[in-house]
Amino acid sequence: MDFSPSPRCQEYLKRVRAFVRERIEPVETALLAQRHAQSRNPDWTQWRCAPEVEALKAQARAEGLWNLFLPDAGLGAGLSNVDYAPLAEEMGRSFIAAEVFNCNAPDTGNMEVLWKYGSEEQKARWLTPLLAGEIRSAFCMTEPDVASSDATNMQATAIADGDDIIVNGRKWWSTGIGHPNCRFAIFMGLSDPQAHRHQQHSMVIVPLDTPGVSIRRMLPVMGEYDAPYGHGEVWFDDVRVPRSNLIKGIGKGFEIAQGRLGPGRIHHCMRSIGAAERTLELLITRGASRVAFGKPLINLGGNRERIAELRIAIDQARLLTLYAAWKIDKAGALASMTEISAIKVVAPNVLEQVVSEAIQIHGAAGLSDDVPLVAILGGARALRLADGPDAVHRGVIARMELGKYAKLMAQHRNGRGE
Amino acid sequence: MDFSPSPRCQEYLKRVRAFVRERIEPVETALLAQRHAQSRNPDWTQWRCAPEVEALKAQARAEGLWNLFLPDAGLGAGLSNVDYAPLAEEMGRSFIAAEVFNCNAPDTGNMEVLWKYGSEEQKARWLTPLLAGEIRSAFCMTEPDVASSDATNMQATAIADGDDIIVNGRKWWSTGIGHPNCRFAIFMGLSDPQAHRHQQHSMVIVPLDTPGVSIRRMLPVMGEYDAPYGHGEVWFDDVRVPRSNLIKGIGKGFEIAQGRLGPGRIHHCMRSIGAAERTLELLITRGASRVAFGKPLINLGGNRERIAELRIAIDQARLLTLYAAWKIDKAGALASMTEISAIKVVAPNVLEQVVSEAIQIHGAAGLSDDVPLVAILGGARALRLADGPDAVHRGVIARMELGKYAKLMAQHRNGRGE
Amino acid sequence: MDFSPSPRCQEYLKRVRAFVRERIEPVETALLAQRHAQSRNPDWTQWRCAPEVEALKAQARAEGLWNLFLPDAGLGAGLSNVDYAPLAEEMGRSFIAAEVFNCNAPDTGNMEVLWKYGSEEQKARWLTPLLAGEIRSAFCMTEPDVASSDATNMQATAIADGDDIIVNGRKWWSTGIGHPNCRFAIFMGLSDPQAHRHQQHSMVIVPLDTPGVSIRRMLPVMGEYDAPYGHGEVWFDDVRVPRSNLIKGIGKGFEIAQGRLGPGRIHHCMRSIGAAERTLELLITRGASRVAFGKPLINLGGNRERIAELRIAIDQARLLTLYAAWKIDKAGALASMTEISAIKVVAPNVLEQVVSEAIQIHGAAGLSDDVPLVAILGGARALRLADGPDAVHRGVIARMELGKYAKLMAQHRNGRGE
Amino acid sequence: MDFSPSPRCQEYLKRVRAFVRERIEPVETALLAQRHAQSRNPDWTQWRCAPEVEALKAQARAEGLWNLFLPDAGLGAGLSNVDYAPLAEEMGRSFIAAEVFNCNAPDTGNMEVLWKYGSEEQKARWLTPLLAGEIRSAFCMTEPDVASSDATNMQATAIADGDDIIVNGRKWWSTGIGHPNCRFAIFMGLSDPQAHRHQQHSMVIVPLDTPGVSIRRMLPVMGEYDAPYGHGEVWFDDVRVPRSNLIKGIGKGFEIAQGRLGPGRIHHCMRSIGAAERTLELLITRGASRVAFGKPLINLGGNRERIAELRIAIDQARLLTLYAAWKIDKAGALASMTEISAIKVVAPNVLEQVVSEAIQIHGAAGLSDDVPLVAILGGARALRLADGPDAVHRGVIARMELGKYAKLMAQHRNGRGE
Repeated sequence: MDFSPSPRCQEYLKRVRAFVRERIEPVETALLAQRHAQSRNPDWTQWRCAPEVEALKAQARAEGLWNLFLPDAGLGAGLSNVDYAPLAEEMGRSFIAAEVFNCNAPDTGNMEVLWKYGSEEQKARWLTPLLAGEIRSAFCMTEPDVASSDATNMQATAIADGDDIIVNGRKWWSTGIGHPNCRFAIFMGLSDPQAHRHQQHSMVIVPLDTPGVSIRRMLPVMGEYDAPYGHGEVWFDDVRVPRSNLIKGIGKGFEIAQGRLGPGRIHHCMRSIGAAERTLELLITRGASRVAFGKPLINLGGNRERIAELRIAIDQARLLTLYAAWKIDKAGALASMTEISAIKVVAPNVLEQVVSEAIQIHGAAGLSDDVPLVAILGGARALRLADGPDAVHRGVIARMELGKYAKLMAQHRNGRGE
Repeated sequence: MDFSPSPRCQEYLKRVRAFVRERIEPVETALLAQRHAQSRNPDWTQWRCAPEVEALKAQARAEGLWNLFLPDAGLGAGLSNVDYAPLAEEMGRSFIAAEVFNCNAPDTGNMEVLWKYGSEEQKARWLTPLLAGEIRSAFCMTEPDVASSDATNMQATAIADGDDIIVNGRKWWSTGIGHPNCRFAIFMGLSDPQAHRHQQHSMVIVPLDTPGVSIRRMLPVMGEYDAPYGHGEVWFDDVRVPRSNLIKGIGKGFEIAQGRLGPGRIHHCMRSIGAAERTLELLITRGASRVAFGKPLINLGGNRERIAELRIAIDQARLLTLYAAWKIDKAGALASMTEISAIKVVAPNVLEQVVSEAIQIHGAAGLSDDVPLVAILGGARALRLADGPDAVHRGVIARMELGKYAKLMAQHRNGRGE
Repeated sequence: MDFSPSPRCQEYLKRVRAFVRERIEPVETALLAQRHAQSRNPDWTQWRCAPEVEALKAQARAEGLWNLFLPDAGLGAGLSNVDYAPLAEEMGRSFIAAEVFNCNAPDTGNMEVLWKYGSEEQKARWLTPLLAGEIRSAFCMTEPDVASSDATNMQATAIADGDDIIVNGRKWWSTGIGHPNCRFAIFMGLSDPQAHRHQQHSMVIVPLDTPGVSIRRMLPVMGEYDAPYGHGEVWFDDVRVPRSNLIKGIGKGFEIAQGRLGPGRIHHCMRSIGAAERTLELLITRGASRVAFGKPLINLGGNRERIAELRIAIDQARLLTLYAAWKIDKAGALASMTEISAIKVVAPNVLEQVVSEAIQIHGAAGLSDDVPLVAILGGARALRLADGPDAVHRGVIARMELGKYAKLMAQHRNGRGE
Repeated sequence: MDFSPSPRCQEYLKRVRAFVRERIEPVETALLAQRHAQSRNPDWTQWRCAPEVEALKAQARAEGLWNLFLPDAGLGAGLSNVDYAPLAEEMGRSFIAAEVFNCNAPDTGNMEVLWKYGSEEQKARWLTPLLAGEIRSAFCMTEPDVASSDATNMQATAIADGDDIIVNGRKWWSTGIGHPNCRFAIFMGLSDPQAHRHQQHSMVIVPLDTPGVSIRRMLPVMGEYDAPYGHGEVWFDDVRVPRSNLIKGIGKGFEIAQGRLGPGRIHHCMRSIGAAERTLELLITRGASRVAFGKPLINLGGNRERIAELRIAIDQARLLTLYAAWKIDKAGALASMTEISAIKVVAPNVLEQVVSEAIQIHGAAGLSDDVPLVAILGGARALRLADGPDAVHRGVIARMELGKYAKLMAQHRNGRGE
C-alpha cells in the first residue's frame, strides 16, 4: 500500500498549484464580483465570457496544463483517475480553475463520451473544438415532470426515422447551455420502450441551432444563474438530426451513461474536497482574526473541536475518493459502484458541513457576497442532487451490501422465511 | 398545566388563519416571483412596495388584525406573549403576512421600544405613523469591523454635545433600511466607555435624512436583497440630532436592548415554526406526488422516518417557544434567559433541517425559484446569526446552567481546586 | 396556556422530592452496590429484596405517597397524567424510588389493567395485594422467535376450552418475573386468528405456580440482571387456567394493550427525564471538580456547548412528554398516538445522549460501577427497545402525518399517479 | 498511489483469516459464554485461562502466526504498520484472536517498549517470555484521583534512591493485571518535577510480587471484568526496585510513551474496524431473517439507508487508519499526530455507531448475552476513553491545524489584534 502520488502526478500537481495560486487566485475576487453581477441576471443572452478567463485559458494551454482529465495521452494528459484526482482537488479551490484548464463539467464528460464512443466524424466536428476550448456543450438528461433519479421515468424520446433521429421532450438543469459558446447538447431519450431496460435509451448529438430546439429559461441555484454557464430548461419539439449524430447506436444510452459517471464523480468530489480545504482556511483565518469576549473566535466555545471534526471529515472524504479513483482504474466503474456512490454522498455533505460552520464563524457577512461562502454552499447543495440525491446513492450502496446476503434475503423475501 | 390557547388567542388565531389562507396564500406565488426579481437587484433606490401588499394591509387593518404583537390593549391587541405566539406561527407560513398585519421586524421591536421607553414627543412623531403602517424603520446595531456578538466590541459612538447628540460609526445588516418608506433608524452607540459595562451605550433616533447619514449599499442574504426591505450598510459621519432623540437617556442602551430581545425572539422563532410547518407540507406534497422505482418518493428509503423526525423536531421547537413566551409573561425576560437563548438555537436549526430535507425531496427544483425553499433557507440561516450565532447562545445557556454550581466552580477556578 | 403544575401536583411534588432527596438518596449508593452484586448473578432464585427498600416502602405508604400513578382517587392518588408526570420525573432520579412509592413497571400497568378491565374477583385476588405492595407481577408479551414489534407475529396462544383457557407459548423479557414476590403474569396470546386483526388476542392472568409455567432463565441488560426484578424467559406448556382469569373477554387483548400503553409511556419517559437531569448534575459536578490543562474539564473544548445542548434537549423532552400527558388526559390515548410515539423516541434518546457525554467527562470511571452511569445507560437503551424500537415509533408518526395527505397519497399509490 | 496490500501482507492475511474463521470462530460462542460467567465475577484470583485458548495459541505459534505486530523480523514478523494493519482488522472480528496470535494489548505495547528501549537484561528477563506468550504484563499509567489525559496531573512518583528506584502512587485501569500469568507492570511516575515537562517522568519495570504492590480490585467495563485480563486498581507503597529496572533512564518516560502510542493506536483502531465489519454482518443477518409488517426488518423504514451510512463510515475509518499507518511508517509518529488522533476519534465512534444500530435491529436480545453486541459496545466505549477521551484528541488535531496559522494567531492572541 502506498499513499504517495506518482511522480507524474506530483509534477503536474506542483504546476497546477502554482498556476492556481499565482495566477488565478489574485484575480478571483474581482471575477467573482463580476460573476455575481452577471449571475443574478436571468437573461442569459446577455451573458459574456470574461476576457481575463480567456487569457488564462490561453496561458494554461500554452503551458500544457490543458485537458488534464482525459486519459488519452495524445489528446489529453493521459493520467489515470487516481493521478488526476489531486489535480481536480487543486482546481476545486477556485471557481474558475476547472474552466481555465479545460477541465470543467459537463464538457469533460461529453469529451470522454465522444472520445470513447464517438465516430470519427463526430470527433472531428465536436470533440476537436471542445478539446481546443473553442466551444462548449451541454448534457440533456434530467426532466422537469418526473423524478429523474429513476431512469425508467424518462419521457423524452429519440426515435429513428429513416436516416434521421427525431428528438422530442422537455429537459432541464442542462448545465452550460447558457454559455455564449455552447454549440451542441448530448440528448438522452427513449428509443424503444420494449427493449431490455438497459437498452431502451439512446444518446444523440443535437446542435443548438437545429429547428425545434428552444431554450426556455435559465434556472438559478440559490439565487445565482452561474453565468456564463447557466442551467437551462430546453424544449425539443420534433427536432430532426441525421442518424450520424447518434452516439454508438440505438439503445446504447444507458451503457454510455454508466461509463460517463465514474470518472465524473471523482472530478466533482475531488473539486468539492478542494473547495472544502479552501473553506476551512477561510473559516480559520476569520476565526483567528476576530475577537470576542477577549479571545479570537476560534478559541471560543466548541470551535476548536469543530475544526478537528472538519479536518477529520475532509481527510476521510479525500481518502475515500482517491480509493474510488484507484478502484475504477484497477477494476472498472461497475466493480466500484459502492465507492462511487459513497463519495457522491460524502464529498458534498462534507463540503456543506464545512461551509455551514464557516458561515457561522463569519457572522452575517458569511451570507453576503463579501465572501464566497454562499456560492460554495450552492455548489455543495447542487452536488447533493446532481446525478441523484443522497438517498438514491445510499440505496445503491445498500443494494450492493445486501447483495452479499442474497441467499439469506431470498429465503425471507416473502415474509415469514418459508 | 393547560396547553390550550386562551379563548382570545383562539379567536384571533381563527381569523388570522383564515386571512392568511384565503387572502394571502392565493397571491403569494405571484408576489414571490416579483420579490425575486426586485430582490436580485442591488440598487435599492429602485425598489417599490407591491400595491397588492398595501391593499392587504388596508384590509387587515380594517378588520382589526393589526399590531397584534403589541401588548398595549389600546394601541395593539393587548395580547400576552404566549397568546400572540400562535398568531406569529401562522404568519410565519407566508413571506408577507407579518407585514400585512403590521407585525414585522424590525418595526415591531422599534415600536415596542418607543412604546415602553419613548417620550411623548417621540411617540407622537415616530410611533404613531409606525403603528399606522405608514412609515418603516431600521435598527442599527451590528458593525462590519468587529464581532458584534460581544457588545463591548462596539465602535460606534453617540456622544452628548450640549443639546445635541453626535453620532458616528459604521453599521451594517440594518434590516429595513432600503424600504421606500423607511424614515428613521434607532442607532446604538457608545456614550461613556468609563461607565459600568451595562451603562456605556445609548440609543438614539436618527431620521434618515439627517446630514451625515449615508446608506452605502444593500447586502444580499444568499443572493437575495430582500426587497423592498433590504439589509443596509450605513455610515454615520458626525450626524447631529437633538438630545430629545435620545431614548430614555444616556447609558440606557443596554437596558433597552435587553428588554427588546425577549419578545422579538418569540416572534422570530414562532414564525420559523410556521415556516417549518409549511415547508413540511411542501416536502410531503412533493414526495407524495412524484414516483420513482414504483413508489411515491415519500415511501422510499428513510423518507418516512425523516418525516417523523421532522414532526418531532417541529413539535418540540413549538413547545419550547411557547414555554419561553409563557415564562417571559410570568417572570420577565431576565429570568427566562436560558429559554430565550434555547429557542434562538432550536427554532432556526429545525427550520433549516426541514428545508434541507425538503430540497432533497424536490430534487434540483428545490434549489431554483420555482419553489420557495431557498428563500426559506435564507431566512433560517439569517436567523442562526441574527442577535448572535448559535454558539453564543449555547454559551449563555451554559453560563446559566453552571451558575447553579457556582460554589463548586469557584473552588476549582484556579486549576487544582485548592 | 399555562405551564404551572396544579396546586395538587405541586404539593405532591414537594413531598415526593423531599422523600427522594432526604430518605432515598442517602442510602442509594449502598443499595446500588448491593444491586450490582445481586444483579450480576443469573441465579434469580437467590435474589432477595433489600430490607432497606421494604422499610422505605412502609414509610412512603404511611405518608400517603403511595400508588400515586393510579387515577382512581380512592385506590390511588387520583391524579391526571399531567399531574402525575412531574412526580414520575422526580422518581426517575433514583433507581429505587418508583418501587418505594409502589409506582414501578410493570406492576403499574398491570394495576391499571385490572382496575380498568378486571372483574371484581380479579381485583380482590390480584389488584388488592398489588396496591398494597405485597406481591409483584409480570407482563408476558414479547416472544423470542419473532419480531414482536409486529403484533401479528405473535405465536403464543390462549385458547378457550370449556371453562378453561389453555395457554401455550414462549415469552421473554417478562420484567419482574424474577422478583421473590412475583405471583402472577398477565399473558397475551392468540385466541382466534380468523377474527378482525384487533380482536384476535386475549389477556389472561396466569399464576406463576400453575403447572406448565416454567421460568427458564433471566436475561441480562448490559450485563445486569436487574435483581430483584429480572427479565425472564418463560415457557408456557399447556397451562390451564379457569376462564375467570380472562381479562375482559376473548379477543380483548389488543384493546387492553392499547389502553395500557399511553400512561405507561408517560411514566417511563418522565422517569427518563428525571434520570437525565440527575445525570447532567453528575456530569457537571465531575467536570467542575477535575482539572486538566489548567482548567476545570467543564471549560475545555466544546464542553460548555455540550452542556447547553443537553439542557435544551432535556427541556424539550420534558415539554413534549408533559404535552403528551395533557393530550391523553384531554383527548385520550388514541388521539395522542403521534405524541406518545414521539416521546417514546425522544426521551430515552436524550437520556442516552446525556449519559454518553457524562461517561466521556468521567473518563474510564464512567464505565465502572463507581458511578451509576452504565446502569442509567442500560435503562436508556432498554427503553429504546421496550414496546417497539425507535424505528417502529417513527413509522407510527409518519403514518399519522401522511394520514393528513390521504387523498393525495391514494392518487399516487399505484406508481404513476393515474 | 496504490491501495493494494503488499504480497507479504496478503499472504499473512490469507492465513490469519483462515485461522480466525476455521479455528477460532467455531469455538467462540462457547468461549464467550465462559467469559461472561468469569467476567461478572469481581474476584480475579479465581479467574483462569481457557485451555482452548492456550491450545489455539500453541497452534498459531507453531504455524508462525505469532508476534505479527512486532516490526523486528527476527523476533516477530517484521511487518510495517501498514502491512500489519489488515491483520489487526481480521483479529478484531474475534474476542480472542489477538491473544491467540500473541498480539494483544497491553502486552504488544510493552513488548515494543522493551524491544526498542529495554536493556539486554530486561529483554532476557521480560521480553523473551512475553514473546513466548508465557507471561503477561500490565501498563500502569492512569490514576484515579486526577484527570489523566493531562500528563502533568500525574501524582505517582518514581524516585531514584541510590541503586534503587522507589515507586509510589495509585494507578487504575491497569489492563491485564488480573491475568493469572501477569508478572510485571511497566509503571510511569514523576521523577523530577523541576525538569523540562517532557523529561519529568520515568518508566520502571515493577514485578508484581515486589513488596508494596497491592492489587486492590478489578474494575468492570459495562458490567464485565474482562476476565482473565481485568482492569485493576493497584497501589504502590514505597515499592523498591533495582535501578536496572528503569527503562532507558530517568526522565525518559514521556519520550517512550510517545513512541508507544502510534502503532498501538493503529492496532486498536484496525481491530475496531474488524469488529465493526463483524457487527454489520450480525446486523444484516438478523435484519434479513426476521420479518415484521410483511417484510424483512432490513427493508423497513430507514434501515437500508442506515446500512449504507455504516458501510461508508467503516470504509472511511479503514482508509484513514491505513493512511495513518502508512504515514507512521514513512514519516514517524510525531509527523503523524493529526492522523493518529483522528483515527482514535473515528474508529471507536464508528464501531459504537454500528453496534448501536445492530442492537436496535436485534431488539431486546441485542442487550442480552445471547449475542456479543454489548461486549462489543463495551470495547468501543472503552476505546473512546483509553489514551484520552475523544475531546482531547480533537484538541490535538485543532492544535496541529491552527499551528499552520501561527503567525495570524500570534497577532490576535491578546484580543484586539494590535
